[in-house]
Amino acid sequence: MSFKIACIQLAVSSDKSKNLINAKNKILEASKNGAKIICLPECFNSLYGVKYFDQYAENIPNGESVKVLSEAAKESKAYIIGGSIPEREDSTGKLYNTCTVYDPEGSLIAKHRKVHLFDIDIPGKMTFKESDSISPGNSLTHFDTRCIAMFYPGAFNMTTGPLYWELLQKARALDNQFYVVTCSPARDTNASYVAWGHSTVVSPHGTIIATTDHEEATIYADIDLDDMKSFRQSIPLTLQKRHDIYTKVTLVND
Amino acid sequence: MSFKIACIQLAVSSDKSKNLINAKNKILEASKNGAKIICLPECFNSLYGVKYFDQYAENIPNGESVKVLSEAAKESKAYIIGGSIPEREDSTGKLYNTCTVYDPEGSLIAKHRKVHLFDIDIPGKMTFKESDSISPGNSLTHFDTRCIAMFYPGAFNMTTGPLYWELLQKARALDNQFYVVTCSPARDTNASYVAWGHSTVVSPHGTIIATTDHEEATIYADIDLDDMKSFRQSIPLTLQKRHDIYTKVTLVND
Repeated sequence: MSFKIACIQLAVSSDKSKNLINAKNKILEASKNGAKIICLPECFNSLYGVKYFDQYAENIPNGESVKVLSEAAKESKAYIIGGSIPEREDSTGKLYNTCTVYDPEGSLIAKHRKVHLFDIDIPGKMTFKESDSISPGNSLTHFDTRCIAMFYPGAFNMTTGPLYWELLQKARALDNQFYVVTCSPARDTNASYVAWGHSTVVSPHGTIIATTDHEEATIYADIDLDDMKSFRQSIPLTLQKRHDIYTKVTLVND
Repeated sequence: MSFKIACIQLAVSSDKSKNLINAKNKILEASKNGAKIICLPECFNSLYGVKYFDQYAENIPNGESVKVLSEAAKESKAYIIGGSIPEREDSTGKLYNTCTVYDPEGSLIAKHRKVHLFDIDIPGKMTFKESDSISPGNSLTHFDTRCIAMFYPGAFNMTTGPLYWELLQKARALDNQFYVVTCSPARDTNASYVAWGHSTVVSPHGTIIATTDHEEATIYADIDLDDMKSFRQSIPLTLQKRHDIYTKVTLVND
């Protein structure tokens, strides 16, 4: 059994409403092309940066973006993985970097708050501290479709992108023998944060089956569950796990 | 602070005594070249194959191989990671694929029994069931040196080697921001199990800093602890781990 997914590498502007209209149009187009699961990038409705999160944040589920994405899911009859948007939790005033997911009826079926915030300090290259403005989520999230895949709306940059983007997604795919779908915003060299682009779909074998450069684009891939199952029987990692002896460790060298 | 390690991609024959002499000579040579930690490949003293393990197996610490490796450590004044040898546990008769480690005084400081046995069945390409003959170990192993690294004596083959050998070691290095050293036997195209070779050292950044093709060879790399520390400060994964929410899961698709 196979079916098609799409990953929309959206060009993101400073105009939230325009971004939402663009996202919806691209979703409908991907659906017309046969996609059953459609993914948007991290921060697809707003500029990415510590100073922007508060300005663009909205309530979930009562904000404008949820409304548009729910409509898009219903009209396209596809699962929509809504990249992420800055979320404001009204009761606490806290901000989160949050992904919402919709089923083909338009219902919000999952909400994931980014857990590992992007705090980095490479002297002379890249300094960014997402946690100055955003609070971390505290749970893992999954939802049920016919597809075993990890969807990763992410915005790597010109430093981390060339070094780690491809390696990490290939590794996660092979480690888990599932599909990995990464979805980045298109690159805007005038933005304060310049995204790497290169949205990609990696097969359970760790090989790239769809990718693109850094311009706005929609990429498509066929998810082949029979092939995945056969690969998992050939190299039965799932049977060989030894959860009885794994421990959670962090190696430090201080 | 930096120091040198060596990884000996040994050519392995059917003659155990000859393999041990060859290993010891290569260890002394690596030590003369300045290596302070020296690693041997998986199954460095014997042919690799389900039908061979029993024939070559010996007691640890009372067998011939421990004696030779202990002497080699003492003479070379280096830590020796003794790849692996087939071990027979006399009390049970069980066989293990076991790595022994020696300090520069020649003391046996660690023993690791391979946990994840190599059971694979790719129709028309590679079928191997190590667990037909070998029992799995039940614990993780570490030992103290000045170096933060994972040493992986391994024998990938002509099917798994080109697909996974490099990707997996780069991924483990970057995931943990430590050095990964993989040490394979040299390739023998007349053997029943043809090893991939390509022993490699990967830096904490996930980049290859020493490697070789498939012939017998010793590769050297400088382990730079200051660089590793600086990288870990730049991208502080070790501080960002969220052990409070990680769970051990196996994803199945049946």
